[in-house]
Amino acid sequence: MNSHPLDLATTLEPLGEGRFRGATHPAYWNMAGPFGGATAALMMRAVLAHPERRGRPVAQTVNFCAAVAEGEFEIAVTLVRDGRSTQHWNAEMRQGEAVVTTASFVTGAERDTWAHAPARPPEVPPPGEVEAIPTAGRMPWFDRYEFRVMNGRTVFDLAPPGELAPADTKVWVRDLPERPLDYVSLSALADTFLVRILLVRGYMAPVATVSLTTYFLADEATLAAQGARPLLGIADAHAFRNGFADQSAALWSDDGTLLAVSHQVTWFKA
Amino acid sequence: MNSHPLDLATTLEPLGEGRFRGATHPAYWNMAGPFGGATAALMMRAVLAHPERRGRPVAQTVNFCAAVAEGEFEIAVTLVRDGRSTQHWNAEMRQGEAVVTTASFVTGAERDTWAHAPARPPEVPPPGEVEAIPTAGRMPWFDRYEFRVMNGRTVFDLAPPGELAPADTKVWVRDLPERPLDYVSLSALADTFLVRILLVRGYMAPVATVSLTTYFLADEATLAAQGARPLLGIADAHAFRNGFADQSAALWSDDGTLLAVSHQVTWFKA
Repeated sequence: MNSHPLDLATTLEPLGEGRFRGATHPAYWNMAGPFGGATAALMMRAVLAHPERRGRPVAQTVNFCAAVAEGEFEIAVTLVRDGRSTQHWNAEMRQGEAVVTTASFVTGAERDTWAHAPARPPEVPPPGEVEAIPTAGRMPWFDRYEFRVMNGRTVFDLAPPGELAPADTKVWVRDLPERPLDYVSLSALADTFLVRILLVRGYMAPVATVSLTTYFLADEATLAAQGARPLLGIADAHAFRNGFADQSAALWSDDGTLLAVSHQVTWFKA
Repeated sequence: MNSHPLDLATTLEPLGEGRFRGATHPAYWNMAGPFGGATAALMMRAVLAHPERRGRPVAQTVNFCAAVAEGEFEIAVTLVRDGRSTQHWNAEMRQGEAVVTTASFVTGAERDTWAHAPARPPEVPPPGEVEAIPTAGRMPWFDRYEFRVMNGRTVFDLAPPGELAPADTKVWVRDLPERPLDYVSLSALADTFLVRILLVRGYMAPVATVSLTTYFLADEATLAAQGARPLLGIADAHAFRNGFADQSAALWSDDGTLLAVSHQVTWFKA
């Protein structure tokens, strides 16, 4: 049994017929519920554990319908369509009668094909030249990641209201304790880019990720080759208006291969 | 009854309990099934028509599970979670016993809040200075849009294999015949950016959109103000590898307001 906090937090007991039981874990606690990335990783783990699953994750959409309460939950995974090149999945997390999270997944056969990467990562200093920000004494999930922030505010570096900061962040990020990269950890890492409005406005305020979509652009061997070394994460947002905002992130291997892109829409109160 | 082809193609007969019946329409036919944007618009129309729906669309994810066959289908819409600030929806399109499309939606209350738009549209010539590309004699859905392409290949301008082109496109795009913008047409417009690999490689080949996520960043009044004038569309892709590729698009009003961002993951054969 792997005792990494992420593996403990995503431990699922199979109940048969695509159903699994788990429980929230204090190591990934956020303000008023689990870190969304931990919930995304749980949904991923459930789909990967489904006996009919073939191939590797290609797309994941997680809808955060309601706050997940501390304690047990059930995840039900349904194979919606079993195609030759892709499988389509729905997943639902319940606590009692309440649906707290829904998700859809696409898995695809591992294939060698033509490859082309028009996008390149920005030039950045190597992780060893960037200091990790201190995370102690904050929300527990911050301690589960090493953040070597290269530009942009962090939640530990907020400014007085009125001074708007850029919405973009460049960061070297990885699991703490260190953990070899896989699709479970990558789906959580995709949500480690803080809700942009907090950085832009410079103070903590009621916000929530409403929906999160991640596309996995690397096969299992590429993730394995990355191992536990830091990923380069780039995040930015286009617009904040009418109570909602978008944001996008790209996660690159440390040798410049794009591993995943992730998009989310966030709610803010005022 | 509005007789615009998009309204005809998204006509749904309510069957009660969130179920609707419709049929594919020849005006939006693609190569081997309906244009994916028309399917997205149908799912949007069904959610908007649900009697319990409040607020405006915020997020839409459409999973193209299987080719939609010519003929009738049923769409079932389920209100998964009815929260104070957001409603979460699932939708499913079936033909006979087969699920051909799944979708999830978030709708949100219309609210005035703090607003901030760090992203700006690129400088481009106005629509009147850009020629519309000829679409006649191609797939029927091409004729349902006016494409004033400013850069990048089009499917009408392919190059011999071996010469790779950039993956990005700048285009003024709108419905044909002209139609005032709403969330139904915007959800379809978000999918008018061709699968990038066709443009990059320069020839038609087997491709498909697997999953499409659109975030709506403008309220109903902003869409109404845009009317039937062309939208500025910007599309690009990061990486093509292992049979899948990402692509993203931004749709701007002609006065520089971001109306929607849209992301998709596409499958390619080889």
